[in-house]
Amino acid sequence: MRIGELSRRTDVSVASIKYYLREGLLPPGELSSPNQAQYDDAHVRRLRLIRALVDVGGLTIAGARDVLAAVDDEQVSLYAALGRAQDAVMTRTEPVDDDATARAEKAVAEMVERRGWTTSETNPGWRTAVDVLAALDRHGGERVAGLLDVYAGAMETVAEHEVAAVVDTEQRERSIERVVTGIVLGGALIAALRGMAEQSAAAARYGGGAAPGGGAV
Amino acid sequence: MRIGELSRRTDVSVASIKYYLREGLLPPGELSSPNQAQYDDAHVRRLRLIRALVDVGGLTIAGARDVLAAVDDEQVSLYAALGRAQDAVMTRTEPVDDDATARAEKAVAEMVERRGWTTSETNPGWRTAVDVLAALDRHGGERVAGLLDVYAGAMETVAEHEVAAVVDTEQRERSIERVVTGIVLGGALIAALRGMAEQSAAAARYGGGAAPGGGAV
Repeated sequence: MRIGELSRRTDVSVASIKYYLREGLLPPGELSSPNQAQYDDAHVRRLRLIRALVDVGGLTIAGARDVLAAVDDEQVSLYAALGRAQDAVMTRTEPVDDDATARAEKAVAEMVERRGWTTSETNPGWRTAVDVLAALDRHGGERVAGLLDVYAGAMETVAEHEVAAVVDTEQRERSIERVVTGIVLGGALIAALRGMAEQSAAAARYGGGAAPGGGAV
Repeated sequence: MRIGELSRRTDVSVASIKYYLREGLLPPGELSSPNQAQYDDAHVRRLRLIRALVDVGGLTIAGARDVLAAVDDEQVSLYAALGRAQDAVMTRTEPVDDDATARAEKAVAEMVERRGWTTSETNPGWRTAVDVLAALDRHGGERVAGLLDVYAGAMETVAEHEVAAVVDTEQRERSIERVVTGIVLGGALIAALRGMAEQSAAAARYGGGAAPGGGAV
């Protein structure tokens, strides 16, 4: 099919399709003449996957390119694909050299030791966790930083179930795609449910739609 | 102080400071001459908060503008600020009208009923949860979608602790800032810890750095 039909079938604009082609997220079609390319069902599936990762999962274009490269690379293991997907959903942070960072480094290292986690400082989550804790420390968020073990315990349960659900070794190709979509979309699902649960917890504490502190909405 | 000193004190480039001024994240300085503005300690504090929200919390500029407007608006209640912060950390999704969406709508409504959550379809998390579940359904992520109650249970525990930690009614001004930073940075902390916990869970399942499926890294 031509690019126009690819656009109609996927509900993605021709301009967006051309953008994904330029950015290397979508493989080029087969040239049927010097100015015309033909696309097939694999392009339809890939476009839908791109939209799921970017629009629903919230990945940047660079993040999507990276996880799709893992899907396409037959040498990438499921374990490595899991790492790439984790990496893509995490905020990039820049460490600041101050007391708050030193305290945060200690807190994360002690939490990992206390919980017996098999992970290391090379895991991008470790650096991000340190930088987030330090930022909380600097901005009056000590009480949220104090929830480190509450967060860690919740993620421990979640991760055990997730790894069992995504890393299932049947046919490799679909497996990598399942790992990537599962990790990326699972993160978006967690954020969405957290918003709902927070509303519910606030309502339980303050009653219905009433505004705590007596302020207006 | 002039913009140059503000830049040195916060380690934020003059170009970035001008960008935040243009985008309305940072209030203008006081004009000491037609071409020169003076900044004070409130600007230093605001700049650091902006960087924490954007660089560490992963907010977009529009998202940061929205939560900072809540911090500045004396009419905004703590409850409303909580909602704004939740909104800013959530992916924007576009509903697709298909069977997967219909199934996801049913699954989310039943989960909310089953858990007795006080929330409604007007909560942005509800719509996002539906769209993420539907996307998982379309992309081979049924097993992750099947973890809905695992995710919901984890977020229930997290949210109860978070709301108790952030919504504490002393002095209002700092409270709103605490709600906003706590919710935004708490989300980044959850994502970071999830990455570490997943590595640990994968290692427990597949042993050390060994790659499941036998593939190379």
